[in-house]
Amino acid sequence: MRAATIRDGEVLVEEHPDPEPGAGQVLVRVRAAGLNGADQMQLRGRYPAPAGSPPDIPGLELAGEVAGLGDGAARFAVGDRVMGIVGGGGQGELAVVHERQLMPVPDAVGFPDAGGIPEVFTTAHDAIFTQAGLRPGERLLVHGAAGGVGTAAIQLAHAIGGHVTATVRNPDSRDAVAQLGADEVLDPEGFEEHGPFDVVLELVGAPNLGANVKALGTNGRIVVIGIGAGAKAELNLGALMAKRGRIMASTLRARPLEQKAATARALEREVLPGFATGTLRVPVAETFALDDVAAAYERFAAGGKLGKIILEP
Amino acid sequence: MRAATIRDGEVLVEEHPDPEPGAGQVLVRVRAAGLNGADQMQLRGRYPAPAGSPPDIPGLELAGEVAGLGDGAARFAVGDRVMGIVGGGGQGELAVVHERQLMPVPDAVGFPDAGGIPEVFTTAHDAIFTQAGLRPGERLLVHGAAGGVGTAAIQLAHAIGGHVTATVRNPDSRDAVAQLGADEVLDPEGFEEHGPFDVVLELVGAPNLGANVKALGTNGRIVVIGIGAGAKAELNLGALMAKRGRIMASTLRARPLEQKAATARALEREVLPGFATGTLRVPVAETFALDDVAAAYERFAAGGKLGKIILEP
Repeated sequence: MRAATIRDGEVLVEEHPDPEPGAGQVLVRVRAAGLNGADQMQLRGRYPAPAGSPPDIPGLELAGEVAGLGDGAARFAVGDRVMGIVGGGGQGELAVVHERQLMPVPDAVGFPDAGGIPEVFTTAHDAIFTQAGLRPGERLLVHGAAGGVGTAAIQLAHAIGGHVTATVRNPDSRDAVAQLGADEVLDPEGFEEHGPFDVVLELVGAPNLGANVKALGTNGRIVVIGIGAGAKAELNLGALMAKRGRIMASTLRARPLEQKAATARALEREVLPGFATGTLRVPVAETFALDDVAAAYERFAAGGKLGKIILEP
Repeated sequence: MRAATIRDGEVLVEEHPDPEPGAGQVLVRVRAAGLNGADQMQLRGRYPAPAGSPPDIPGLELAGEVAGLGDGAARFAVGDRVMGIVGGGGQGELAVVHERQLMPVPDAVGFPDAGGIPEVFTTAHDAIFTQAGLRPGERLLVHGAAGGVGTAAIQLAHAIGGHVTATVRNPDSRDAVAQLGADEVLDPEGFEEHGPFDVVLELVGAPNLGANVKALGTNGRIVVIGIGAGAKAELNLGALMAKRGRIMASTLRARPLEQKAATARALEREVLPGFATGTLRVPVAETFALDDVAAAYERFAAGGKLGKIILEP
């Protein structure tokens, strides 16, 4: 099979042996695979794939059709449309995934859109609900709201009756972010005047930390998922105590199978129905053929887009 | 009634009008009232009593006998032995407390010991179980383990089968801390070599933060309750993400009635049986008569003790 391949700091297309599904695994013919920030970090050598994933084929999410089943795999049949997060290897013509990490693609969702759902909706759902416990009526602040995880978080919080404040750096993204369900869309400068917030979803990095604590309400939670703008900042523990606040930091990729499977079950139960009814959607900024993978990565790195960049192997 | 009183940065004994129990409240004839770090902070003008508590009578915990009942108060009868946390006003001959904040004193516990139980056991139980969710078999690190909250946390974690590592500054306290149930007692210097820890109970302050994150295990939780050694430190969010770790900061005093009542019910259910059987105990370092309140505060401030300083009004 052909697959996107990271080789000496560049991404190109190479021939690889077809992967074979092991016990409990499904062979997926990949139809769509979203790009994510983690791919960019892996390209720069800063985010190696976890053990058990292809070390040189990037891609943390995929959607496609079941092309084969390993021993004991029984959740899906050949031909079923499936999607899921993977530890790596999503951006090839074929991939193997444990069946418990996969979800059915709702009938209402086509390719390439399905290839952009798993990573950002799993990350956003896990962060704001499973980790931070966002409740109806609470106020959510999303930093970096125009990105993939941000657009997912806005929709998920809006759908349960949360009040969503979004910060976006690029003024051109404001209208689209508001249309996804943000009640307020702000420039990042001075956001702390608009609190108090019950939950802060931090997708930008450490420079916001001090102001996040200031803007936090009593019993507020800050969930840190992205640190592209920096990792280190001063924390005032006294200020955090006065709010009885929490800082939760997380990543998805390194989690063991049982935890990734649990996130898939949570999405099937709480998120996929929203795609079936059309309440939720994944904005797709642009699609690329596998042969154009280098251009796709350049487009992602350029930023300024709203929505996902998706490869179609 | 006579009560410890904070006046112009000094603590002395003054006459006050007898408090009267309002609806749902209990009038308690105080027999024992523990001193806590918060009293010292209030003495220095840095921790004013919350609304609804006497502004000038210190004391966050008390034990005594029921001397009167307000409208609708029905959980206790006159003469019952009770104890509980209060927002202030514990260190007087009489105090009023909402009945749902009070707990019965187990038969096996006498005065003055009962006066040293509520604040430290509520704080420790809330921090390591309710906040951090410590589980049997997990590893707990307690910084400042010779203090009141530290000695309570060691006993509580040991009782459920946790593995407890304690740091103490004063080498003279090591044996006593080990006898309370600590599996390892360390000097604070270099503690991070002894991880990974599932839960860190921080009773000292910000200077430990960086090493706490380094010493944290996957899915580890740092609970910050005391910051006497400093409030501000650099936090590496990338390191915290790699651990999928959490920092939780909390205080008890400012919480509303319903939350304080919930902590009292949790103690009745999960902690008081340990006092009834003798598994748990509150080390008492020294007791003082109400007239000697200034000497009691000086003794507390001098440090180096293991266990509680308790006033006997």
